[in-house]
Amino acid sequence: MSKIKIGIIGGTGYTGVELLRLLLVHPNADVVLITSRSESGRAVSELFPSLRGFTDLAFTKPEPSSFNHCDVVFSATPNGIAMTHARELLNKGVKLIDLAADFRIKDVSVWSEWYGMTHACPELVEQAVYGLPELNMALLKNAQLVANPGCYPTATTLGFLPLIESGLVDVSDLVADTKSGVTGAGRGASVANLYSEVNDSFKAYAVAGHRHLPEISQNLTEVASQPVGLTFVPHLTPMLRGIHATLYANLLSPDQPIEEIHAIYEARYRNEPFVDVLPLGSHPDTRSVKTSNMCRIGLHKAGGSGKLVVLSVIDNLTKGAAGQAIQNMNIMFGLDQTLGISSPAVLP
Amino acid sequence: MSKIKIGIIGGTGYTGVELLRLLLVHPNADVVLITSRSESGRAVSELFPSLRGFTDLAFTKPEPSSFNHCDVVFSATPNGIAMTHARELLNKGVKLIDLAADFRIKDVSVWSEWYGMTHACPELVEQAVYGLPELNMALLKNAQLVANPGCYPTATTLGFLPLIESGLVDVSDLVADTKSGVTGAGRGASVANLYSEVNDSFKAYAVAGHRHLPEISQNLTEVASQPVGLTFVPHLTPMLRGIHATLYANLLSPDQPIEEIHAIYEARYRNEPFVDVLPLGSHPDTRSVKTSNMCRIGLHKAGGSGKLVVLSVIDNLTKGAAGQAIQNMNIMFGLDQTLGISSPAVLP
Amino acid sequence: MSKIKIGIIGGTGYTGVELLRLLLVHPNADVVLITSRSESGRAVSELFPSLRGFTDLAFTKPEPSSFNHCDVVFSATPNGIAMTHARELLNKGVKLIDLAADFRIKDVSVWSEWYGMTHACPELVEQAVYGLPELNMALLKNAQLVANPGCYPTATTLGFLPLIESGLVDVSDLVADTKSGVTGAGRGASVANLYSEVNDSFKAYAVAGHRHLPEISQNLTEVASQPVGLTFVPHLTPMLRGIHATLYANLLSPDQPIEEIHAIYEARYRNEPFVDVLPLGSHPDTRSVKTSNMCRIGLHKAGGSGKLVVLSVIDNLTKGAAGQAIQNMNIMFGLDQTLGISSPAVLP
Amino acid sequence: MSKIKIGIIGGTGYTGVELLRLLLVHPNADVVLITSRSESGRAVSELFPSLRGFTDLAFTKPEPSSFNHCDVVFSATPNGIAMTHARELLNKGVKLIDLAADFRIKDVSVWSEWYGMTHACPELVEQAVYGLPELNMALLKNAQLVANPGCYPTATTLGFLPLIESGLVDVSDLVADTKSGVTGAGRGASVANLYSEVNDSFKAYAVAGHRHLPEISQNLTEVASQPVGLTFVPHLTPMLRGIHATLYANLLSPDQPIEEIHAIYEARYRNEPFVDVLPLGSHPDTRSVKTSNMCRIGLHKAGGSGKLVVLSVIDNLTKGAAGQAIQNMNIMFGLDQTLGISSPAVLP
Repeated sequence: MSKIKIGIIGGTGYTGVELLRLLLVHPNADVVLITSRSESGRAVSELFPSLRGFTDLAFTKPEPSSFNHCDVVFSATPNGIAMTHARELLNKGVKLIDLAADFRIKDVSVWSEWYGMTHACPELVEQAVYGLPELNMALLKNAQLVANPGCYPTATTLGFLPLIESGLVDVSDLVADTKSGVTGAGRGASVANLYSEVNDSFKAYAVAGHRHLPEISQNLTEVASQPVGLTFVPHLTPMLRGIHATLYANLLSPDQPIEEIHAIYEARYRNEPFVDVLPLGSHPDTRSVKTSNMCRIGLHKAGGSGKLVVLSVIDNLTKGAAGQAIQNMNIMFGLDQTLGISSPAVLP
Repeated sequence: MSKIKIGIIGGTGYTGVELLRLLLVHPNADVVLITSRSESGRAVSELFPSLRGFTDLAFTKPEPSSFNHCDVVFSATPNGIAMTHARELLNKGVKLIDLAADFRIKDVSVWSEWYGMTHACPELVEQAVYGLPELNMALLKNAQLVANPGCYPTATTLGFLPLIESGLVDVSDLVADTKSGVTGAGRGASVANLYSEVNDSFKAYAVAGHRHLPEISQNLTEVASQPVGLTFVPHLTPMLRGIHATLYANLLSPDQPIEEIHAIYEARYRNEPFVDVLPLGSHPDTRSVKTSNMCRIGLHKAGGSGKLVVLSVIDNLTKGAAGQAIQNMNIMFGLDQTLGISSPAVLP
Repeated sequence: MSKIKIGIIGGTGYTGVELLRLLLVHPNADVVLITSRSESGRAVSELFPSLRGFTDLAFTKPEPSSFNHCDVVFSATPNGIAMTHARELLNKGVKLIDLAADFRIKDVSVWSEWYGMTHACPELVEQAVYGLPELNMALLKNAQLVANPGCYPTATTLGFLPLIESGLVDVSDLVADTKSGVTGAGRGASVANLYSEVNDSFKAYAVAGHRHLPEISQNLTEVASQPVGLTFVPHLTPMLRGIHATLYANLLSPDQPIEEIHAIYEARYRNEPFVDVLPLGSHPDTRSVKTSNMCRIGLHKAGGSGKLVVLSVIDNLTKGAAGQAIQNMNIMFGLDQTLGISSPAVLP
Repeated sequence: MSKIKIGIIGGTGYTGVELLRLLLVHPNADVVLITSRSESGRAVSELFPSLRGFTDLAFTKPEPSSFNHCDVVFSATPNGIAMTHARELLNKGVKLIDLAADFRIKDVSVWSEWYGMTHACPELVEQAVYGLPELNMALLKNAQLVANPGCYPTATTLGFLPLIESGLVDVSDLVADTKSGVTGAGRGASVANLYSEVNDSFKAYAVAGHRHLPEISQNLTEVASQPVGLTFVPHLTPMLRGIHATLYANLLSPDQPIEEIHAIYEARYRNEPFVDVLPLGSHPDTRSVKTSNMCRIGLHKAGGSGKLVVLSVIDNLTKGAAGQAIQNMNIMFGLDQTLGISSPAVLP
């Protein structure tokens, strides 16, 4: 099989460099183009010396014809950009994987409310496949347009999924207390994300409402086939990579043994190469998935009660962004979904 | 007033050096003795060069007569040591503030179960005052024996207190998702707390049961005058100091405005110098209390529901240990409770 | 004595908040005014919640008459601002301590070359006293205008000082390999200083030439009474606070015992409250001075050779900026130089 | 070609897990055995959950016959262990790569002095090849016993190499100011390497003499064909991985243009896949090589003088240990030296 010709829009952020780290040594990938308005003309390896020796590409200005010869485009731009390119790319027969949020929310009015924009191509939203392979494998195989999930939604949805599918918990009172490393905040210049502002400190943010809330709610509602009540509190942790979701739910049968629930998780994810259900009693740390596309899950029952505690960890840049996007590409092009993203986590 | 003569048992850990940092410049304190079996004979300022110029003390071996001339002893040893000294010190008229857990749990059988030891002086447990001044001010004024609270219990209890006192929430389903800096794990040699094990990573631990659970439950049960249902999940965060407690409770009246609840918190803590209720919408970060004795609290209501989210932060070594112990000493000796512990937090 | 009335220009950076942390509890200080164009109208404690309860001040726009009632003004702005205010303040009898570089370099043409600006008041440069108390105590007592030293120059000059004063080393070949925490880079929004850019990494910068080079050279040349040859390489370290200077010099008598040199350092700094010469064999870590105004120095001789290695550590925000500025204020107003800046370092 | 059968002695440290991370996905490697006395019987993936799904191996007790079927053994134990196994392994025809220091120093008496042990097999020391491929490629191809270089020696030797080979600098006065991440200190339980001891701090250590000094001196002396005068000062930096060597040397012709020297470096390393000479003016950061086997080098001349400053960075666990060991294995077995160790650095 000839290599997949790949274009990347907006590859100057952490998601972009993670895409490049993985795609430049992916056996079936050929990155032919990477665009950036701000860095146009600059060698990729000058901006990211970690890639010296792996690519001679330079950033280019995006032009209408830029992507004519691509098989697929990854859009790693801020929200609101991919939707302005999508129609044209699809018309040319170029598949599109959007790592931002433009196509994640099916209800366009909800999307507009949370993202503060009018959607440029609402008619494509329905067509877009939400790119969580553990949920939408069949649809992804034929997808032309993929909405790559957010990092919190990936960790949280995978953590709750078997529980809700099996109807074991009260879906009207779910709590997701989530913690993210700082790369999740992006590579834009800002005081709030300076080393000197976030190091050696910990805080919650956006408790009143975070954009990943409607995305997670949509996922869980779909699985539950009924509205869910979700409290979602994100926190910023002084580390580079990693999401740790601590999930709380009340068992409908408070006395149900944790072993039964553990068996359900194991069965649900037995054939999923990127979800690892740990032995009972385990506490996954985020470093156990650092730089890998794996999600690891631990299960606990709080002493004496019917409260279930699920611990779900991913690397926000890999399974939470670039790695999952490549997993989706693999699926869309009929490849083994693990191709190019199966290295073990780096530890420490 | 002449200075308070102070002895410290076991001052080689982080609680010990924090006690020294504060007491050595406290206007009414005179540290006359500090014991350590392992470091006996070594100058304090050799072990802790940060204290060079502030003390000429050396660590000494603890002897029966060591504390004869002390007014008060701080015990900063591992659990199970203070209870072996307590009777003798009290008989001599020396007050004792235990920074470990020996006197925190009123039900001695519960204590034995969680701490895996037989209590050496159960008859003193009842007499001991739990040293949370915001709860027990009157008792502390005449206390001879103080059980200084744990770090998680301090942040969690202060965060839940007004809510439970006012009877506004369902106390049968409280969740405390708590995060601690690494100094909370102590200064003992261990692989688990190596820099290379905990840096750039995040994890939950002891989900099945942590020793601070019965302590928090005891506090909240006492306030609620009924049993409470508490789920307590501690996490380890890659930072030096700080506790961030994210607390969840369901309002009995889901539509109760957050402004009302905020007013209740403000009223409850108006006269407490070390609890700061932030304006609505605030997200306290742990660095806002770093090295200070302050607890800062933010209040939120999760969108549309009756779920209340309380954010409570302290420095685990100060308000969560040494600072609160000094606050208790000030109260026990009739001093202004803020004496020597009123410096602003260090930022950043 | 009535309190010193203090104004602060540009207090929104890390030097500003460090000044406030120290001055708001300084027994003789009364901060009456703090200006910021960007944050005008905002409460200081809103920008810096760590200061809640310590001040009711709000930032104000700087106006010509703003500082009429001040005894002294600290200018904590970027380079090039203080020189535009200096003449007016001095004419009003207001003393000025500039924490930026406007008055540090005596040769105005050298200054212009390194800082890329024309000097606004070259006639004041000569009058300005370089605020390193260990070098210029007598001049500081009567100073109206003080150029507060840079952080690298403070650590490096104090480290080399006794060696050069005593004429023991070849001043034509000095090496200063220096490492700084990230707060030294300031609080401006920039990609380069994002947590995700600097954490878990280490680098040199500005090897070809850093603005602190002419400042250090000026100091050492003055002490040596001859030109010095200095190689100065700064590095960025993933920590918040701290400068570690590793200094190399060749002894003129290669066999001179290190004990003799150590004795010279001890004698030189015996009466300096903020310079601590450690016992031979010591390796000061930066945390031993964190948040304190202390400089700690260790001395070593590299095995068998005549190479002397001096280790000098300070907190860049305290002895390297705000603390030293307050030390200078104390001296200028006839107070004990240690007033308000004598707390022990925070550890850890 | 059938896969290389690999045994690992002592794989419970950071070098061990890095070996496993790379070897478990190396196309020609088959790890058949891993020993550990302390963890015998425990699954490798239980100790290192990052490896779950990549190996079913458990640690075993080392027995005389354990390695009979291995082609090569990596010894990742503390110093002094490999020398007790070497003779037996070599007699069986098993190649040995020692990642500790047992075979690095050719002068056995010097080795004994620095390592405080009598050497168990001095006759093998001469036969051992020092495994720096950029220096000893020819010898490595036929080596049976390889002494894998230390981390500091790798970064420092590669940084100085072209300069000394070309005879451009005064070798009697070389300075290596080096900085290491904390994984370099190993995974043993120790107070000194606790997160709470080393985070947010920076220090020099072992200035009076570090075991890597004789190793570097041996390398440089061999290249220079004359004794060298080296001052070596290591520092501990709060980061996980990375060595940054800042190297100073005096040009024999002070006016020699830096461009000439840069050309010499480029020529020297043109065919070395793991040494990257950066464009003039560059400051390599350690993250540009994180998790990779690359060494990146920047060159500078200090303003106006004949002082050359070389910046050399590696990942201490990869090019400084496990990666280089695999590079050596590849060479010893006639494979492309980059096999299995050619992934780009992880950033950030």
